[in-house]
Amino acid sequence: MKITAVDAFYLSMPEVLDIGDGSQDMLLIRVRAGDHTGWGECETSPLTSIASLVCPMSHSACQPVLASVLRQNLNGPADIGRIAGEVRARSLDLLQADHTLSGIEIALWDLLGKAVDEPVHALLGCRTAAPKTPYASALFADTPQQTLDKARHLRTQGFRAVKFGWGPYGRSTVAADADQVHAAREGLGADVVLLVDAGTVWGEDVEAAALRLPSLEQAGVLWLEEPFVSGALRAYQALARRSGSVRLAAGEGAHNAQLAEHLIDYGGIGFVQIDTGRIGGIGDAFRVAGYARERGVRFVNHTFTSHLALSASLQPFAGSGADWLCEYPVEAKTLATTLTSNRITIDGNGQITAPRQPGLGMRLDLDAVRPYLLDIEVAVKGRTLYRTPDLVP
Amino acid sequence: MKITAVDAFYLSMPEVLDIGDGSQDMLLIRVRAGDHTGWGECETSPLTSIASLVCPMSHSACQPVLASVLRQNLNGPADIGRIAGEVRARSLDLLQADHTLSGIEIALWDLLGKAVDEPVHALLGCRTAAPKTPYASALFADTPQQTLDKARHLRTQGFRAVKFGWGPYGRSTVAADADQVHAAREGLGADVVLLVDAGTVWGEDVEAAALRLPSLEQAGVLWLEEPFVSGALRAYQALARRSGSVRLAAGEGAHNAQLAEHLIDYGGIGFVQIDTGRIGGIGDAFRVAGYARERGVRFVNHTFTSHLALSASLQPFAGSGADWLCEYPVEAKTLATTLTSNRITIDGNGQITAPRQPGLGMRLDLDAVRPYLLDIEVAVKGRTLYRTPDLVP
Repeated sequence: MKITAVDAFYLSMPEVLDIGDGSQDMLLIRVRAGDHTGWGECETSPLTSIASLVCPMSHSACQPVLASVLRQNLNGPADIGRIAGEVRARSLDLLQADHTLSGIEIALWDLLGKAVDEPVHALLGCRTAAPKTPYASALFADTPQQTLDKARHLRTQGFRAVKFGWGPYGRSTVAADADQVHAAREGLGADVVLLVDAGTVWGEDVEAAALRLPSLEQAGVLWLEEPFVSGALRAYQALARRSGSVRLAAGEGAHNAQLAEHLIDYGGIGFVQIDTGRIGGIGDAFRVAGYARERGVRFVNHTFTSHLALSASLQPFAGSGADWLCEYPVEAKTLATTLTSNRITIDGNGQITAPRQPGLGMRLDLDAVRPYLLDIEVAVKGRTLYRTPDLVP
Repeated sequence: MKITAVDAFYLSMPEVLDIGDGSQDMLLIRVRAGDHTGWGECETSPLTSIASLVCPMSHSACQPVLASVLRQNLNGPADIGRIAGEVRARSLDLLQADHTLSGIEIALWDLLGKAVDEPVHALLGCRTAAPKTPYASALFADTPQQTLDKARHLRTQGFRAVKFGWGPYGRSTVAADADQVHAAREGLGADVVLLVDAGTVWGEDVEAAALRLPSLEQAGVLWLEEPFVSGALRAYQALARRSGSVRLAAGEGAHNAQLAEHLIDYGGIGFVQIDTGRIGGIGDAFRVAGYARERGVRFVNHTFTSHLALSASLQPFAGSGADWLCEYPVEAKTLATTLTSNRITIDGNGQITAPRQPGLGMRLDLDAVRPYLLDIEVAVKGRTLYRTPDLVP
């Protein structure tokens, strides 16, 4: 098959709020080859990624992403790796390219799986997908009491693992943070896995993070996520040496496999969190999952948006029973929940499994999301380089 | 002072060729505060960076770069650090932001220097700028004889240091690469510093790179640059342990200070090469220069474009006599050479020094570059978010 079209669609909620909720917009990618269509979602700034798709060439290593994808042959998994490699080489100096590539690469896997009638994880060599325990991601509420209520509610919904993060955490006193964490534990009860996400709030400040460790240990928190910005390897390593029973988790910001591997090699993390919509797609995430497994580090997806993104994020570690946790979006905006007409649901054991249907196994409801589509136009020297294509034929 | 305007200008040669020449276009940034104007150049894909400046917010950590700069106070160096920090935090998930920030941050230093009548390096605590030995960057020619002729020509031009790279190097046999390196040495003579740039040709393949070490040692090559992609820290470290008198050089791809520091901490490099137009600006480059100095690693600029960019790249290590080498563009396109009406020239000792004039010390010739300015329009939902502003009032 030859890739005949790569289209990008910027969808957005009517109002985007200044909160840590990444499901308020999306860049949806549609790829066509042969008689098949594949879909992927980039975790990105949509307008910026659209520009990276169609921008004029700056030099041989700063080319628009589209130039390395259109008209390529796509007949097997090796072609996807080759195309991603070409994007990386020819857009080496185009920083945004990794985020843009991610959605395209995911769409290529979806398309290939549909063409050969196999789920993506089967194309990666995994015949049966292992069930995962989904954790609910929630924001810390403004007050400990509200966090406690939220935790109780998530427990009654049947979640066996819950992550609280962002909101006021790390932004006032050590005591206030402890109150929040203890409220979360009280609301969840003793038997639900509790994870805490600091959202890079301490930058590179090891001591500020270390002051929170006692309350995290007391509350039996499994991991402390992103105490620091993702490049602060020395800070991660220093905190890991002092964190006792609390493991460190990081990696969502990795925009290539090597950045995630550095957190494993030099940062001392116990969980590596990969967003397939950012790291370059399913192939890079699969590489990291194998790398982590060999070193006793657990792989976890990072997913905050649609079930299309969730399916893409489950594929790279679907075959690994040891990687038992997965992130499961519970507070996504209607744009994200409306995108697919089927969903990856939690079974009677409180677990989820990557879809068995071909490709990513998700059916898109294009009519339902069309109202969220933004009209975009980008013109250079009077020539239109991008105009929003038709979403529904 | 309050920052009242941040304008971006996409300038391009009429024809952009598919060659490794980064001087074919530029994104020029103009910042205004009080009665002053500052200029900076981003080393970036211009259209993609324009989108990152003005894109709609996606969520609290994915905001347009402009939102963190406009209307900020600018009264001293600490304000520049604070503004850069805000961009990094509020555009954490906007990958392109680092390249965009770089030009803005440089323009802020230029503006502040002009406002207080001091060169930028003085604002960084350096009263007298140390002279640097510029090296000429040239491509390996197709045959060893042509490379020899090129080397002879550069020697007669008075260069005390020359870098050869790219072209056929690393792409055929070990013997052919040795012939190229020996030809370069023969043409330069024994007393000119010879540097070799492999342009990431071996990916992560340590053995392929190690096979070239004997010829590099025999030819007295000071550094082997970018044998691997910049994230391949394990490969860098493994090669550094075997490289004898040949030091490794890398870092031009670093889009924040930490990525460059990782090459020092874990990659075993001897020279760290920083492009202020990519790393986040002069502040980040200055941080890396200090970090390198404490660890016995030499700092070198990476500059392939205008003398505005060259001045910006000299400021962070102007005060360090130990960091004696600097990259000096010798084959830049007319857009880059036309941008400034003054130039940083090579003195009688074959050395260059950061300008002593306020700010970056460069005078822009806006009338001369206006023909290269591209008309751009970016519209979302019928609302124009960006239209090329007036370059000349």
